[in-house]
Amino acid sequence: MTSNPSGFHLMQTCPDSEARAGELQTSHGVVPTPVFLPVGSQGTVKTLTPAELKDIGFPVVLSNTYHLYLRPGIDVVEKMGGLHKFMGWDRAILTDSGGYQVFSLARLRQVSDEGVVFRSHIDGSQHHITPELIIQFQEALGADIIMTLDECPACDDSFEKVQRAMHRTHRWAERCQKSWKRRDQALYAIVQGGMFPQLRRQSAEYLASLGFPGYAIGGLSIGEPKEVTIAMIEETVPLLPENKPRYLMGVGSPEDIVEGVVRGIDIFDSALPTRVARNGALFTWQGRRNISNSAYTRMEQAIDPGCECYTCRTFSAAYLHHLFDCNELLAYRLATIHNLFFISDLMHKIRSAIQDGTFSSFRDTFRANYQPTDEQVRLSQKKKWLESRNQSEWPPVN
Amino acid sequence: MTSNPSGFHLMQTCPDSEARAGELQTSHGVVPTPVFLPVGSQGTVKTLTPAELKDIGFPVVLSNTYHLYLRPGIDVVEKMGGLHKFMGWDRAILTDSGGYQVFSLARLRQVSDEGVVFRSHIDGSQHHITPELIIQFQEALGADIIMTLDECPACDDSFEKVQRAMHRTHRWAERCQKSWKRRDQALYAIVQGGMFPQLRRQSAEYLASLGFPGYAIGGLSIGEPKEVTIAMIEETVPLLPENKPRYLMGVGSPEDIVEGVVRGIDIFDSALPTRVARNGALFTWQGRRNISNSAYTRMEQAIDPGCECYTCRTFSAAYLHHLFDCNELLAYRLATIHNLFFISDLMHKIRSAIQDGTFSSFRDTFRANYQPTDEQVRLSQKKKWLESRNQSEWPPVN
Repeated sequence: MTSNPSGFHLMQTCPDSEARAGELQTSHGVVPTPVFLPVGSQGTVKTLTPAELKDIGFPVVLSNTYHLYLRPGIDVVEKMGGLHKFMGWDRAILTDSGGYQVFSLARLRQVSDEGVVFRSHIDGSQHHITPELIIQFQEALGADIIMTLDECPACDDSFEKVQRAMHRTHRWAERCQKSWKRRDQALYAIVQGGMFPQLRRQSAEYLASLGFPGYAIGGLSIGEPKEVTIAMIEETVPLLPENKPRYLMGVGSPEDIVEGVVRGIDIFDSALPTRVARNGALFTWQGRRNISNSAYTRMEQAIDPGCECYTCRTFSAAYLHHLFDCNELLAYRLATIHNLFFISDLMHKIRSAIQDGTFSSFRDTFRANYQPTDEQVRLSQKKKWLESRNQSEWPPVN
Repeated sequence: MTSNPSGFHLMQTCPDSEARAGELQTSHGVVPTPVFLPVGSQGTVKTLTPAELKDIGFPVVLSNTYHLYLRPGIDVVEKMGGLHKFMGWDRAILTDSGGYQVFSLARLRQVSDEGVVFRSHIDGSQHHITPELIIQFQEALGADIIMTLDECPACDDSFEKVQRAMHRTHRWAERCQKSWKRRDQALYAIVQGGMFPQLRRQSAEYLASLGFPGYAIGGLSIGEPKEVTIAMIEETVPLLPENKPRYLMGVGSPEDIVEGVVRGIDIFDSALPTRVARNGALFTWQGRRNISNSAYTRMEQAIDPGCECYTCRTFSAAYLHHLFDCNELLAYRLATIHNLFFISDLMHKIRSAIQDGTFSSFRDTFRANYQPTDEQVRLSQKKKWLESRNQSEWPPVN
């Protein structure tokens, strides 16, 4: 067992791949890895209570500094006793710095070495953030794991633009590290470098030299083809310290999680399982099923008869189909429970397989049975979603 | 204790009012009265699971034949094993016949003595229902209490129109009674007569003479002033048999429920507590509070600090305010839990007070503390809601 001051204990590695099992010590409990973090950007995993997330079995959730800064405001969360108390969650929390949101949601950005001036996507109000402020905000929120501020280029930006963003991300990471005071919180740095192998390697090496408690890979799964995502992960991971946790931000689907684990990733987060649930797409071990399909109108069995989640134990596929047909709010909730249970179950199975030394056979069986979403469909859905996020409450100016 | 074949046992009456406590025997458990039925028109009490409704303590819920007939279809529910199994609810269910919905939601109605031809408010498809069909549908759904088909006039219809509708309602009630086969289901008749005391008396007397297991008062709380509602109840109740349950349909607010109990009502249902919850209006013993009010932005206490519901035990008013501010789906759910818990608690307190002989003092304390919604605001909200229901998915033709 390899242990280190970041609270990460590497327990087992797979002989046939980079997959590894470990444990993350936090002030709010032990987090077994590989782990998936449900996304609760606004201090709530959409439709669910903390009690339900516990029942499903998640040891840690993700929230977002950008969103909480705009609503209800960092000072409100702090006054309410911090984010754990505010959202009624006594297990671990990771807050993203909000870098990605500033660069994908906010308007009229002016980036300088000092920081970013932007307008809120909600009401157009102007704000100015710096690496130091982002650490201060995250210390006030009080999550167990916090993130450096990064600049996220678009997936089709030029080499020069991505390089500039990477260097700025590095300088911001150093400033975050310098202003980081609450050592009960683990500060993770975020590797950038766009879709350029050389920059990815440079970013990983540079940040690794600074000695953070953990490392994230940012700026992926933002519209690029899947093989590019995987190539960038493969460039990055070998340059990250073996004894520190590796966090692949914004990933993903069941098939992407398995491929990430194969390549040595320990931590994942993504809104995908909860977002597609609200659109009626439910995970099974054979792939996604759309509950709105008329085949489910009279199906007495659960959507996934072998599944032990509350939804599948309690309701027929016909009932779930009916709730979606009527746009009943309970539909979104029951589908969310199912998809998060599936992902939680997937993570448990992955971890057990790594510990038992049977991960490569688990991976092969998974790949053979699970029909991934068609790549063209996936990219067009992703594009549609990224565009829809830009139709914010406040009209964009450019 | 007075008992009778309808399964109703009258246990206690209040010496100072018409209030009474009883028990209703059903195939799915005993229902203590006075009782409030949460509304699950489409086979779901909006946002909640059956487990949550049980936790709150409801012994019976309401569903709706018109809605279930259109979606998913009576045959689907029947094939899935009936409504209890379909919605995962093993306690009692009452299905409304859908008369009110045909006369308030459906389009292009043609009413004859035979029945009603109407177009669906969802897709404009044409349907023909008769009293016999409505009983057949409700027998297939399998609720514990079922209702006769009634014709519901508008609250400003002329005496002649209301009188015609009343006579038709009576003939339909007789046909429902005649075609009623499943005697494990209790069939209740619905008193009509609009806002005309003479017609209300005539309707109550006539239907009472037919000997139903229970009696409902329909066609009230549809936009008329509160004193008219109360006057109509007072005309009707004395003419209904003492040993049969009395059900005031579509009522209501906490203040209306208390006034109904005072006048001898045993059963209530209304979408109001769940509907206003989704608009952020939360019940307290002092009256409704709107969680969107900025006063709650930083309130560490629960919205009702004395309340023992899951929402108040777990979350600050500030958190609930934040969820509403962000339009998070969890907001609607937490508010629904609170309002239904309040109503359930109200019914328990009412019943205990009747049994202890202290109901008149309970009523006085309630009236002294609970600030009802301003009558003008109430009527305008009701009007707005009734109009919004007419903006259906299928464009109205007339």
